[in-house]
Formats: sequence, structure tokens, C-alpha cells
Amino acid sequence: MSKKYIEFINLVKTINELRAIEMLLEWDQQTYMPAQGVKDRALQLSTLSTLIHDKLTSKKMGNFLEELQKPKVQEKLSKQQKANVREIAWEYHRAKAVPSKLVKEISKTKSESFNKWCKAKNKSDFKIFLPFFEKIVDLKKQEAEAIGYEEKLYDAFLDGFEPGFKSSEVENLFSGLEKKLVKIVSKIVEKGERPPTSFVKCGFPIDLQKKFNLELARKIGFDFERGRVDEAMHPFTAGTLHDTRITTRYDEKDIRPALFATIHEGGHALYEQGFLEEHYGTPMAQPVSFGIHESQSRMWENFIGRGMAFWQYFYPRLKKFFPKQFKDRSSEEFYFAINDVWPSLIRVQADEVTYNLHILLRYEIESAMFEDALEPRDTPQVWNEKIEKFFNLEVPNDSQGVLQDVHWSEGYFGYFPTYTLGNLYAAQFFFKAKKELPKLDEKIGKGEFSLILNWLRENIHYKGRLLRANDLVKEVTGKPLDDDFFISYIKEKFGKIYGF
Amino acid sequence: MSKKYIEFINLVKTINELRAIEMLLEWDQQTYMPAQGVKDRALQLSTLSTLIHDKLTSKKMGNFLEELQKPKVQEKLSKQQKANVREIAWEYHRAKAVPSKLVKEISKTKSESFNKWCKAKNKSDFKIFLPFFEKIVDLKKQEAEAIGYEEKLYDAFLDGFEPGFKSSEVENLFSGLEKKLVKIVSKIVEKGERPPTSFVKCGFPIDLQKKFNLELARKIGFDFERGRVDEAMHPFTAGTLHDTRITTRYDEKDIRPALFATIHEGGHALYEQGFLEEHYGTPMAQPVSFGIHESQSRMWENFIGRGMAFWQYFYPRLKKFFPKQFKDRSSEEFYFAINDVWPSLIRVQADEVTYNLHILLRYEIESAMFEDALEPRDTPQVWNEKIEKFFNLEVPNDSQGVLQDVHWSEGYFGYFPTYTLGNLYAAQFFFKAKKELPKLDEKIGKGEFSLILNWLRENIHYKGRLLRANDLVKEVTGKPLDDDFFISYIKEKFGKIYGF
Repeated sequence: MSKKYIEFINLVKTINELRAIEMLLEWDQQTYMPAQGVKDRALQLSTLSTLIHDKLTSKKMGNFLEELQKPKVQEKLSKQQKANVREIAWEYHRAKAVPSKLVKEISKTKSESFNKWCKAKNKSDFKIFLPFFEKIVDLKKQEAEAIGYEEKLYDAFLDGFEPGFKSSEVENLFSGLEKKLVKIVSKIVEKGERPPTSFVKCGFPIDLQKKFNLELARKIGFDFERGRVDEAMHPFTAGTLHDTRITTRYDEKDIRPALFATIHEGGHALYEQGFLEEHYGTPMAQPVSFGIHESQSRMWENFIGRGMAFWQYFYPRLKKFFPKQFKDRSSEEFYFAINDVWPSLIRVQADEVTYNLHILLRYEIESAMFEDALEPRDTPQVWNEKIEKFFNLEVPNDSQGVLQDVHWSEGYFGYFPTYTLGNLYAAQFFFKAKKELPKLDEKIGKGEFSLILNWLRENIHYKGRLLRANDLVKEVTGKPLDDDFFISYIKEKFGKIYGF
Repeated sequence: MSKKYIEFINLVKTINELRAIEMLLEWDQQTYMPAQGVKDRALQLSTLSTLIHDKLTSKKMGNFLEELQKPKVQEKLSKQQKANVREIAWEYHRAKAVPSKLVKEISKTKSESFNKWCKAKNKSDFKIFLPFFEKIVDLKKQEAEAIGYEEKLYDAFLDGFEPGFKSSEVENLFSGLEKKLVKIVSKIVEKGERPPTSFVKCGFPIDLQKKFNLELARKIGFDFERGRVDEAMHPFTAGTLHDTRITTRYDEKDIRPALFATIHEGGHALYEQGFLEEHYGTPMAQPVSFGIHESQSRMWENFIGRGMAFWQYFYPRLKKFFPKQFKDRSSEEFYFAINDVWPSLIRVQADEVTYNLHILLRYEIESAMFEDALEPRDTPQVWNEKIEKFFNLEVPNDSQGVLQDVHWSEGYFGYFPTYTLGNLYAAQFFFKAKKELPKLDEKIGKGEFSLILNWLRENIHYKGRLLRANDLVKEVTGKPLDDDFFISYIKEKFGKIYGF
């Protein structure tokens, strides 16, 4: 290994140590931090973020990258080393491009805008949020211009979450998807049948829920030597290869929220815990993109965790924990109760079919805003029209409409599409896995998860950021990303359940 | 406020933000971190420590201090501002004085030496530790030479924990103390009476212990909006004004360890939570010294928490939590059981009388080592002789002797005396408080702690690092530090209990 490369990678590791610290501070803030710690924590995070930014955009880093990107030097690098250089160069470019004055203004506006969004959501009054929404949209436009893009301004955002992905590709995938999903949902609504769910929301002592969820996490492969499970209002995963922390949310009444939060975050965690030791602290031991990360959580949550085989194994165990609640209830009834598909207003509560329409709606609105085809002030109206069109539902107020998600208030544009991209990746990966592993369902039914986990390790986790999302999909499945896999999966699963 | 001072204080605040992060990482390591996180955490801490060192010793800081220490500039500073400048100048000098090569060598040797100490302690084999002990002693001598001192080399260490304190002062205090304590202990041993303690170690469900300890912490004034109570193997306190975290240790059998760990750490925490908001992030909102910090924990743990009035209030409450265990046991019996004084081998398990002899022993050994009057290889022998002399006990092996404490393996010389200084400060402060607050015992007996807490706030906490330890003692009590207060307290309390 060249001396230059080693020095470069040491700097990268230092930056990633600081990022690991950043993650710990954020984890702590959502789990254990006392109430009054919030102001100090904001200052600590801002100090860290400045340090990270300074190191990432340092002259030293610039020189390393210039040297390591020279064709003669590249020749001597392994493909993993090349990937590390490529990914850091990408981070460097994005960080360097934005003038620090703009970075500071965005950061300041974000926190104001977040506060106003909270207030606006509480009072269900979009007007409170609007001036800050407009300001953040304007600043983010400036940021995108500074970063640069090939086709559309929105590409600059998308690239931040799904490196290398273009709006036009998303557009292509999503426009077909919308029609197909609306059709499927309308079929389910026509049938009008909904599962009985009272028995899954009749009260489950949290102590017992905790015990079951920890067992479940362990069983699917979560390594407690290298991680923890805690509680948070909004479950999330934070961590690195050796210290991955997931959070879940217990509802005293309903058994479902914790179960699927644990499996979802568990899926994220299995990815983080699945990188190769030798790449620790470098992009080669980091997730490809938000969408690929989400593909792992969604695959575990929905494709595996909401599947019949999974509960064939776990339902009898769950019944042992809660014999009274599940008395005389078959695993089929439970399966139906966790696969209740129905139009609703709130994204985070949506099922695996309608969820994507919530995403498409947001994507359409934000991409239109950044093409100047839609003004921030008109977003509530467009939102409500789309909800009407997709779900035939009326939005009673902006709290349950355009104000429901935090993302825009903090300037996270280009983030939403990665949720649905995650579902599409997951479907395509899972199709391939099932084909290569004919005994997969049988094993899952026996509570043996190493078959699928090893497949994910080999095909996805071990590769780190070697390939970008599109190339990874092609390498693993032999085809570029295609929504057919997802639609087929949905049609087959829910066609059986709902009989269409 | 001058522009220079504001810029200076902003840099100080940034440094202290990084230190608060450091503390959180250490807290996390001792409480929630998964096992495998340990290597990464060490790297993260080392990266942070470098960043802090670089900022503290930066040219920028040097220039600020040079400017702010000019007589003409000083004239315009308030006494609080002067204290901030003085304390940072002291930190700057200590950090700047040691060549970075030596800093690195010490840091590397510390972690090797710590590992070897663990091994040596486990095997009770001092020879394993000796070469590393010698090396760390040698490096620390170099460090002390680099830092500089007026009288004795050991002063350079002492100054790091108890700024401004000289060996000669400690020497003076401790030589008298030793004789008096040995006499008191021998009187108690002569009496030969020990309290019945089986009822305080007959099993206490941890859930209930937790509940009681949290109530206790809240009752004495710990602010849960600005803090937490968790568990750790070796209880400690970490934090700042807005986020102070204490830890305690539950023993399923014995009720006492958790109670007194909670009160002790609670005392530390009340100090941290007691600084003034306006000084947040500066020395004026930081503890004066290790000894003064310890005076707060010891005052709560022993002077208040092992007092009759305290349990007059808490014992009936404790009885309600554990009616079976305390059936037919009076508060006097409980009081005696928590005030069991008897010679023993292990410092951390020692009572409030013999504890100080454990400290004097360590102080005598380490100060002799740094006057070249004692070689590291001879420390086990000297240790064992002193234990024989103080307690008439034989040390069966080095694990229970010279290897029992971690401090020396990590190069913490000059730390031990601060424990006993803490007791002396506490006695002198408490004497004054009782004099000024004639109703103190009565209030404590009613579970009203605001009287003493407010006194501590006004006299000690609010002052931050305005005065150094000696000056603070003089200002608060009208006299320089004197061991008479401690000895009188011990004689009165234990004379009553043991009848001498």
C-alpha cells in the first residue's frame, strides 16, 4: 500500500471516528439524555460538525485526493482502495462546493424552521411554517446550485442520499409505479374486507414485550456483543460495525409497533454489523446509500417479517409470552392482522402497499417545487388533492397533511424517494435470494435465519461502498432496478390475502 | 466586555464542549456500551483528546492569554473574568509544558501499564506489573520536570489535581492526622465491639432498591431534568451544569453499597448542578479541585448521609420498602450498621475513619518514590509494613495490597491525597455550616435538605473556580485548612457510638 494512501485512509478514519461520536451523541439525545441537556447537545453537535467539515475539506485532504486520483496512482490501487478514494472524493466535492456562509445560514435556518414546524404542526396552521419553509427551499436551491448537477437541480439533493441516482431514473420508475399501486389499492378497497385486529391491540405488558423483542432481535442475527436495543419515540439505528444501536417503541396496547420497529431497525443493524472488519472506518465499511440501507430494513420488516414463514416460527413463541391475548387465535389470523392494507392519511402508520403512494406524493411535490412548477405556499392544496386522488380520502387539517413529516422543515429534500427505492431494491434482491435459496421459506419457518443473512452478507454487506446502488443491483440480480419485482411481490402476497 | 475576552471565552467554551463530549463517551463506556465497542471508543477518545490538546495549546490561545494577562487589560476585567483567565492560563501552561512526544509516550505506556496491572492483580503477582510501574514512574518524573515546581517534584502532580497546593502543606496536615487516626482506630479495636449487620445484607430486590435510591437522590436535591442515575461497576459522576449523570452499584444482598454510592455521587452531582448558568462552559462553572469536589461527595455521604438525623427521616421510608428485612430493627441499629468502623485491607470498602489511613499510606509511598527515597520494586514491602503498623493486619497477597488500586498503573500520582483533603475540607465546611445553621439537624431529620444545599450553593458552588481551594476554605470558614475539624467530628461521632 502506498504511503500516501495510508496517510489518506488515516485521515478518513479520524473523520469517521468523529462521525461515530456524532452518532453516539444523537443516539443519547433520543434515548437517555435529560431534558435540559438539549441546548448543550446542539452546541456539541455543531462543534463536531464544524470539525468534521474542516477535516473533510482540508487542504491536506484535497492534496491526497488529487494525488490518489491520478491515473498512474489509481493503477496501483485495489478496487476496494479505488472505491474508498472515489467515495471520499464525492464527499469532499459535496462538502467543498457549498460556501461556509451558506452552510451556516442553512444550519441556522434549519433549527428555526424545525421549531416553527413543531409549532405549526401542533396548531395545525401551515401559515406559521410557510415563511420558514420558503426560506429553507430558497437556501437549498442555492446549495444545489453550488453543488452542481447534470440534468435537474433536484439531482443534487438525490445524489446526497442516493449517490449517482438521477431524477430522470426516479421519474421513470415512479410514474409506472403510481398507476399500478393505485390500481391494487382500489381493488383491496373494493373488496372492503379488513382483518379483525382487536386481539393484537388488547394490551401487552411492556416488560414482556421487551423480552420478546430482544429474543427476536437475537434470533434474526443481531449481535449484542456489538450492539444494543433501547427505546426511542421515533425508532432509528445508529452505529458502526462494532457498536450498532437500534431503538424500538413499545405501545402498551398494541403488540405490532414494537415488533415491526425491532425487525425494521434490526434489518438496518444487520447491514451495519455486516461490513468486513478489515475495512473498518472507511467507506468500504459503510452503507452504499439511504435506499440500500432501507432495502435491508424493509426486506426484514416486510418481505421476511410480515411473511407467513416468519410467524410460523415466531407466532407459537409469541403465544407463549401472551397466552391470554392470543387464545383461540390462529397464526393465519395473526398474519392477516399484521397485513392490514387500507388507505390512510399518515405515512409512518401506513402498510407496505399504500406506504409507497405516500412517498410518491412527497416526491412529486418536492421535485415540482425545485423545478419551480410549484410554490411552497401551494403545497397543502396539492397534497390534499393527491390524497384524494390516491386514496379517496379528505385531509381534515394540515397536521395530518402537509405538516405531518419533519423532513422538509430540516431541508431534507431528496430523502423521501429513498424509502420507496428501498422497497424496490428489497423486492429485486429478495426475488433473487429466493431463486438462489430454494429452501429459504422452509428455513425461516424453522427460525433459521443464517441462510438469508449469509446471502445478504455475501451479496450486499461485505461489499460496503464498492459499488453504487445501481451497479450493486445489476451485479446481484443481473438486471437494472425495475419496479416489476415489487409489483409482482405485492400482487402475489395481497392477491392471496384479499383474493383478487 | 472586551472583544478579546469574548473571543477567548468562545474558544474556552469550544474546548469545554469537547470535554463534555469526552465525558459522555466515558459515561457511555461504563454504562451502556456493548462489549466490542471498547477498541473504537479508545480511538475516539484519543482523537478527541488530541483535538482538545491542540486547541488548548494553540497559538491563538497563547495570544489571548498573553494579551489578557497584561496589567492594563486585567484592570478592566471583573474578578470572575480574571479567574477564568487565571485558570485557563494554568491549564495552558501545564498542557504546553509537556513535549508532545512525552505526552504520547505516557499515553501509550499508560494503556500497556494498565493492562499489565490488570493481569498482575488477577494473578496477584507484582513482578508482572513492576517493569511498567517503573517505566510510568520514570515518565511521570520527566513530565513533572517539564511542568516545573517550586519545592518538590511531587508538587507538579499535586498541582494537577489540587491547583496551588504544595507537598509541604499536605505533609504538615497528614503527619499529625496519621497519629491521631491510629490512636482512634486502636481505641475502637480495643473496645472490640462490632455492630450486627446481617439484617442489612439479607437480600434486597434490585427493582425496589432502584426505586428507593432514585427517590433519595431526588429528595436531597438532585435535579432529574438536568441529570440521570444509572448503574456502573465503579460508580462515578460525569457531566456539566445541564447534564450531570451519576451512577450507582446495586448489591442484591447488601442494601448499603447502593445507598452510599448514590449519596456520594449525588454529592458530586449537586456540586456540578450548582454552578451559575451565566458561567456555563467556563472555569467559573467548574469545580475548584478534586479535593473540593470530594468534599461535596463526602459531606453528603458521611457527614449528612451517615448521620442520625438523615436516617431519622429516611429509615422509616426504607422500612416501608423492605418491611420484612427491617422488622424489629430500630433506626439506632441501622445507624450502627452503617457506621461499622474496623481495620481492613481494601480502601474502597473502608469506613470513614480508617479510609484516611489507606490514603496516608498511599501518599507516603508515592511521595517517597518521587523523592527517590523509595524504589518502585520496594513498594509492596513498604505497603505491607504500613498496613501492619496502622491496622495490625497482615497483607496476604499483593492483590489485596499494593496492586489493589488502578491509579498508579495509569500514572495518577498526586490523586490519592485529594480524597483525604476532601474529608478535611468537608469537616471544616460542615462545622461552619452547622454553626451558621442551628436548625440544620432538625431540618435534615424532616427530610428538608434545601437549608444545607443552599448554604453549599452560596458558599461553594456558585463560586466556581473563583478561588483556589485554600482561599475558598479561608473565605468560607475564616481559617486555613486544619485537620482539627475532622478529628473533632470523628471523636465526637464515634466516641458516642463506641463509648470512648
